[in-house]
Amino acid sequence: MDFRTDGTVYNVGMATRPRECSIANALTVIGERWSLLVLREAFLGVHRFDDIQRNTGASRDILAARLRRLVESGVLRRVQYERHPPRYEYVLTDAGRDLQPVLIALRQWGERYATVGEPPTRWWHRCGRPLEARMVCAHCGEAVRPGESQAEPLSSSA
Amino acid sequence: MDFRTDGTVYNVGMATRPRECSIANALTVIGERWSLLVLREAFLGVHRFDDIQRNTGASRDILAARLRRLVESGVLRRVQYERHPPRYEYVLTDAGRDLQPVLIALRQWGERYATVGEPPTRWWHRCGRPLEARMVCAHCGEAVRPGESQAEPLSSSA
Repeated sequence: MDFRTDGTVYNVGMATRPRECSIANALTVIGERWSLLVLREAFLGVHRFDDIQRNTGASRDILAARLRRLVESGVLRRVQYERHPPRYEYVLTDAGRDLQPVLIALRQWGERYATVGEPPTRWWHRCGRPLEARMVCAHCGEAVRPGESQAEPLSSSA
Repeated sequence: MDFRTDGTVYNVGMATRPRECSIANALTVIGERWSLLVLREAFLGVHRFDDIQRNTGASRDILAARLRRLVESGVLRRVQYERHPPRYEYVLTDAGRDLQPVLIALRQWGERYATVGEPPTRWWHRCGRPLEARMVCAHCGEAVRPGESQAEPLSSSA
């Protein structure tokens, strides 16, 4: 395989229209700052509108729109927790929980490159050590590093 | 430690102002659809404005703004490749290459939950098998799963 030394992967060529891509598809669902911060709150156990609003700093209008979209996309589920008046909270679905690697990867990069001083929140793995996640290949168990993977387009546009 | 069974982690409480957080910090740099698609192209070996524009589908104005921001943030580096007329390409810095786990996590989630049919691009690890990355704890080597980590706020706002 043709692995490059500059950290990029194999050049899969030019497209005549935007590349079809699972990353783009994922971003259509969650590729927006407020949506990802809403998901962060859900992972932190914060499920109610007012609390999410305060912890993210999103405006109420934007937050309502993002929550609606995340529920429509099947990432969050709306659960009634009070009958009179009816009140709802937002909890992660299985699809939502499977976004954990995205948030962990963002957190680790943010700690390293976008945060001045001590990280504002410390995370622990269940083993009792600080959570430092790394990506490994599910087949060989080796670390997945830039320049060590290769992309093969299946469609003419990629 | 108090691990929840619903996939969320320990509730780190309510804030009176938006939570300080490395995820939010990271999103300030790259938390925008076009920025992430530009980075995807850089990982795929596509470095020139016109090619990035075609492969992402971004408008030229938006793309120019995103590239400027990514260079200012130290994620991309602008490299001259032609003198007359002067032309530049955009390559990943070390900080940019360290975003690979974010893109891999987005791709895998997108393939599973946001893509109909076959994924448009197949990825291979250098071991020769399809790239299926998973996150493991750097200390114990066990998989990092939702509900098995705990957050501890270091600042009053988290």
